[in-house]
Amino acid sequence: MANWIRFSCADGAVGFGTLSEYGRRVMRYEGSPFDIDGTQPTGEEMGIEEVTLLAPCQPGKIVALWNNFYALSKKLDKAPPKHPLFLIKPARSVIGTHEAIRRPVSYDGKIAYEGELGIVIGRRCSSVSVEEAEAAIFGYTCVNDVTAGELLQEDPNFPQWCRAKGFDTFGCLGPTIATGFDWRAAHVITTLDGVERQNYPIDDMIFTPAEQVSLISHDMTLEPGDVIACGTSLGIGSIKDGAEVCVSIKGIGTLVNRLL
Amino acid sequence: MANWIRFSCADGAVGFGTLSEYGRRVMRYEGSPFDIDGTQPTGEEMGIEEVTLLAPCQPGKIVALWNNFYALSKKLDKAPPKHPLFLIKPARSVIGTHEAIRRPVSYDGKIAYEGELGIVIGRRCSSVSVEEAEAAIFGYTCVNDVTAGELLQEDPNFPQWCRAKGFDTFGCLGPTIATGFDWRAAHVITTLDGVERQNYPIDDMIFTPAEQVSLISHDMTLEPGDVIACGTSLGIGSIKDGAEVCVSIKGIGTLVNRLL
Repeated sequence: MANWIRFSCADGAVGFGTLSEYGRRVMRYEGSPFDIDGTQPTGEEMGIEEVTLLAPCQPGKIVALWNNFYALSKKLDKAPPKHPLFLIKPARSVIGTHEAIRRPVSYDGKIAYEGELGIVIGRRCSSVSVEEAEAAIFGYTCVNDVTAGELLQEDPNFPQWCRAKGFDTFGCLGPTIATGFDWRAAHVITTLDGVERQNYPIDDMIFTPAEQVSLISHDMTLEPGDVIACGTSLGIGSIKDGAEVCVSIKGIGTLVNRLL
Repeated sequence: MANWIRFSCADGAVGFGTLSEYGRRVMRYEGSPFDIDGTQPTGEEMGIEEVTLLAPCQPGKIVALWNNFYALSKKLDKAPPKHPLFLIKPARSVIGTHEAIRRPVSYDGKIAYEGELGIVIGRRCSSVSVEEAEAAIFGYTCVNDVTAGELLQEDPNFPQWCRAKGFDTFGCLGPTIATGFDWRAAHVITTLDGVERQNYPIDDMIFTPAEQVSLISHDMTLEPGDVIACGTSLGIGSIKDGAEVCVSIKGIGTLVNRLL
């Protein structure tokens, strides 16, 4: 089990590393866990205060699920789906922890947080079995799947999932990618300005992470660094301008983003 | 006005060039029209038979519109939308002319062709005006927006646009990118095994290309090489396994893809 981060240094260099000493120290690596050549430890160690955390990966796409928790499915009175139901958030939606969620210039409606588990793909996979899918998962991160809620049903003929969720800065990822992580034992906890708003067990999930990767890999090739946002459960709500959302998963860390 | 192609040579080198002599000759360029450094003519000339055409750009995303032609909107009895209605097709969906559309291993239902005009973005743009949008368009290509039609409404609660249209090889682009192209004077003509199935005037479009780029750039940053598929009009239908679809736009060329 390791916690991978991606960071920039004071000199502008960008790199990958793992955390040690309860997150206080960074062990620096050469290369990227998402490149074919992988990573090599450099032996260099830094204090966490010497680096700026970035989104822990740079997905070409985020595949974001809807209706993937039994509790939410029951509350919405919608049957559990037979296949993961998803939309795509583009690469430019991604930000890391402590980066600002930016209100779109063209939208003054409600903006919602959705705390989620994120699966980070480690190997290219296409039409893989559940077992192969398990091996293709590099690790897990926290996701805030931000949504311009009032756009979703703005047009009566076409629910605008990609538009409502695709804005730049609406795909918050981080702070780390945890490898060897036991998602079955974890909860997603979301706070809004310090007040707990979501706290749900991940094992209430309809499609497990390996099932998601396997099934979605039959729909499209998943690439190293791609993220599947596993869907949210009960407790989503609006973020007032200026408010801070924290998504925490024990073993991964706390993803912090303010709406500006 | 020029017709840009992307190609590979017998030695495996990949490059950009423009066509001359009615498409018989290729003028080779260094660099890419989508890189900040742009292109330089090399002076090298080749016969078209010496190269293999590739998709003319490598979009990070295809933004694909639904209900963007008055004739189709009327036939569907749906009001023209107030904002472009779109989904995202991922990068791996892209293929070029004469590459095969592959039937997904997990799907034995109907697969539809949709002949469309594609806008190719030349400059990064975010929240730009219609005038700025016009200047951000590099050129135009043909699109076959392939769709696994029976997946769209498979789940009663969530129309699966990204899934039905996102499969690898379902985003056919090419054969060229035409710059300085007058879309108002052109038709999209689609043939299925040589029989004309679509022939519609592009100026029946609800949102013009510059309006699409401007409005969508308020939803997400558009990057050089990204493609907006402008939506289709009347005459879409199913492709039988083994059948060949040609999408032709005068001034751009004919995009040819067979379903295998």
